[in-house]
Amino acid sequence: MRLTSSALSFRLLILIFIFSCKALALKPRFLGRNTDQSFSQHRSVSYNTLYIDQQIDHFGFLENGTFKQRYLLNDQHWHKDGGPILFYTGNEGDITWFCNNTGFMWDVAEELGALLVFAEHRYYGESLPFGEESYSNAKYLNYLTSEQVLADFAVLIKALKKSQPGAEKSSVIAIGGSYGGMLAAWLRMKYPNAVVGALAASAPIWQFIVPCGEFYRVVTRDFTISGSNCSSSIRSSWAAIDRLSATGEGLQWLSQTFGLCGPLKSQEDVFGFKAWLQETWVNLAMVDYPYEADFLQPLPAWPVKVVCKNLQFNKGVSDKQLLNGVSQAVRVYYNYTGDAVCLNTSKTATGNLGFLGWFYQSCTEMVMPMCTDGINDMFEPQPWSFQAFSDECYNQFGVRPREDWAETVYGGRNIHAHSNIIFSNGNLDPWMSGGVTKSLSESLLAIMIDGGAHHLDLRYNNELDPQSVIKARSLEVQYFKQWIKHAATT
Amino acid sequence: MRLTSSALSFRLLILIFIFSCKALALKPRFLGRNTDQSFSQHRSVSYNTLYIDQQIDHFGFLENGTFKQRYLLNDQHWHKDGGPILFYTGNEGDITWFCNNTGFMWDVAEELGALLVFAEHRYYGESLPFGEESYSNAKYLNYLTSEQVLADFAVLIKALKKSQPGAEKSSVIAIGGSYGGMLAAWLRMKYPNAVVGALAASAPIWQFIVPCGEFYRVVTRDFTISGSNCSSSIRSSWAAIDRLSATGEGLQWLSQTFGLCGPLKSQEDVFGFKAWLQETWVNLAMVDYPYEADFLQPLPAWPVKVVCKNLQFNKGVSDKQLLNGVSQAVRVYYNYTGDAVCLNTSKTATGNLGFLGWFYQSCTEMVMPMCTDGINDMFEPQPWSFQAFSDECYNQFGVRPREDWAETVYGGRNIHAHSNIIFSNGNLDPWMSGGVTKSLSESLLAIMIDGGAHHLDLRYNNELDPQSVIKARSLEVQYFKQWIKHAATT
Repeated sequence: MRLTSSALSFRLLILIFIFSCKALALKPRFLGRNTDQSFSQHRSVSYNTLYIDQQIDHFGFLENGTFKQRYLLNDQHWHKDGGPILFYTGNEGDITWFCNNTGFMWDVAEELGALLVFAEHRYYGESLPFGEESYSNAKYLNYLTSEQVLADFAVLIKALKKSQPGAEKSSVIAIGGSYGGMLAAWLRMKYPNAVVGALAASAPIWQFIVPCGEFYRVVTRDFTISGSNCSSSIRSSWAAIDRLSATGEGLQWLSQTFGLCGPLKSQEDVFGFKAWLQETWVNLAMVDYPYEADFLQPLPAWPVKVVCKNLQFNKGVSDKQLLNGVSQAVRVYYNYTGDAVCLNTSKTATGNLGFLGWFYQSCTEMVMPMCTDGINDMFEPQPWSFQAFSDECYNQFGVRPREDWAETVYGGRNIHAHSNIIFSNGNLDPWMSGGVTKSLSESLLAIMIDGGAHHLDLRYNNELDPQSVIKARSLEVQYFKQWIKHAATT
Repeated sequence: MRLTSSALSFRLLILIFIFSCKALALKPRFLGRNTDQSFSQHRSVSYNTLYIDQQIDHFGFLENGTFKQRYLLNDQHWHKDGGPILFYTGNEGDITWFCNNTGFMWDVAEELGALLVFAEHRYYGESLPFGEESYSNAKYLNYLTSEQVLADFAVLIKALKKSQPGAEKSSVIAIGGSYGGMLAAWLRMKYPNAVVGALAASAPIWQFIVPCGEFYRVVTRDFTISGSNCSSSIRSSWAAIDRLSATGEGLQWLSQTFGLCGPLKSQEDVFGFKAWLQETWVNLAMVDYPYEADFLQPLPAWPVKVVCKNLQFNKGVSDKQLLNGVSQAVRVYYNYTGDAVCLNTSKTATGNLGFLGWFYQSCTEMVMPMCTDGINDMFEPQPWSFQAFSDECYNQFGVRPREDWAETVYGGRNIHAHSNIIFSNGNLDPWMSGGVTKSLSESLLAIMIDGGAHHLDLRYNNELDPQSVIKARSLEVQYFKQWIKHAATT
């Protein structure tokens, strides 16, 4: 079975974390000169690239093969007499990209005297259990699970403590953002012997069990508060597109107005066009950072506000006026630099490695129900159907998702017995809908970042950072120090 | 590949927990009249036999088949308005046997108003993932791991809470003995959402990492303190056997003196004979209970003392005198009732289901190094060789053990972050060598039972119980109540 790109209808159900396929799709220009030394757009970061042999299957003994897991290491500021290890629990993409986009770790390394480690997630980047064939069939994909990944991390940490002179007594702190943040939290939950604590930034560990409409409500709220009539304009746009696309002339007008690379020709194309727009609004909500940034795309400060300036329509607006505004709004995201020749509606959905991997993970363990109703959100109504989702997964991968497994294995809301985990969330981030936003105990701490988008706290310090994120980072470091100190005395 | 019985040399390395194959081999007479209602030798216990569909592979999605896991349930004393669930984490054998031999749970059910559940371990008893073929090849055996079993338990507990009216708010306490005790502790460690605490009785969770000679030192100590010259007589017996078995006449004498069912004919037979003796001494140390009991075999109170009465030899004793004593000693174990026609040296090593299963588990995850030196213990020197062990496993099952995995996945000695686990151990029990015998924190508690053999505390109350075990059980119940109370308020 060779996997193909997903059905368009499915695309709406599989939200990609921002730390995702896009890393590969966009080939970020700030990635390194070679595999051993890379430099970010912000600061010069250098690291050694290393590999560790990992069992392909930690939980069975018939498959006894191993693969090389990549990890990056920087010991520039490390105090080898017991300084801590900050361990990035890599998520669904190339680890060099996470390494370059987790400025927080680089910013605090000196203060903590820390060794920095960035561990790549199996099946992404270079860490492919069956090489280029890793995605070629269901048998090879069978070892792409979060449990296997956590075991990889635990094995790597044990090996680091053995192999790095001085590391034996080092406290390890797991750090991750988004799905990587979920992994950081779960690593502390399942392997508390490996890490003394975890920073789970924008980690929606409860996305499996929250009402399916929550995510899109947050997206909608971001647009509502960012400009007059902004979300209502978007809500109106879907029917306007439907009306215009009913004629050949309308399709042509839409294609020209949006400057699409491939003109819309069929209702299927229109369906895809709307899915692309929806994904664009979601992405914008996630990267609504307070300063000019080049994360998924080069974007201005507070991009949702900039987008919304083009969407201040009252009810009586004509379809063409409204959609002309939408086309300008979309260009903020896709053409801030002015370099784009045309807009490609399949751009973020092509079958790149990261996308396929997360797609498979969604189709097995990571079942996050999503739905829209068009009333509490600004999108077209789309109910959640586990059965339809399961069938789609079966068609794509030959596997069926297990609806309840994530809650069973990771404890759902009943995680009070664990300790030393910080859950940070930004109130602009749609993923906060599945996050832990209230502290559960003295050592399961929620930090809310007012005005924060997706894991803003993991980014480099910036002079335009709001006080909320400055305070959050300071608190995070304070807890790290507590954990390290406590571990040293037990 | 059809699995065969193990090589004799291997038998010395694979110690079977007492809750083991023997359950099946001996067909204990006190087992029930039918599968739905069983009565123990001590008290009448009745239960319902139920089954739950479990994924064969919790950690991969390609194998999507299910099997029926058996569990037993008694709600006679259950307070359905929130009374706790005592959940026996079944180990390597038929669950009805554990049910009948865990009198402690039956004794405390009324006081706690508890629902009793006994969950069978996959690949044992009736819970066979591939039916009668489960042991027929390495592919089918691939899902026999402790991680899969813990997932079975977590799924079952979640299902019970849903399906049993009143159980939703019940606190669940895991209880297990021996390997089942390890599973109870690990269930609390890995799924603290499922159980509020665990009683891990005689659970050698550190047997993977303690010096390999510890186990046999405890066995030896039991014999040393149980009679004058007892362990030294056994230490002398091996060379005496070697000398006698050098001639045909000697072999004949040995066979007759021990009343063996099959006469010794070769050096290989003699090797097996010595292995059988060694296993007998180990078993006796494990079941050295203070009252007449019928656990593995009908035995007198304090059987090691009774055995040692036949082994009070000084150094000058002749080989035949010494071995005549040994033959009398062995009969205490094999023929206390006087019914045995002859002694069968292959009796405890035949390839029954329980044995094969534990053999496989030892050959994959449960790598417990064992060795003897003949100086600090009373056995013939046998060093530990992981490589030899691994080769033997490969020959038997086509898999190789992973030496470090158990420590990685279950945390080794660094388990301080966990909570609400009682580790009880008897100081006569050889398995205490790998147990947690000192409290690690206020909620990781060690209880030592002076004069206690293998999980004495899990047995029914007995008028001959020493104060130590009465106190231990009382403490255990006290902690249960604390956990339940605390869970009700969080």
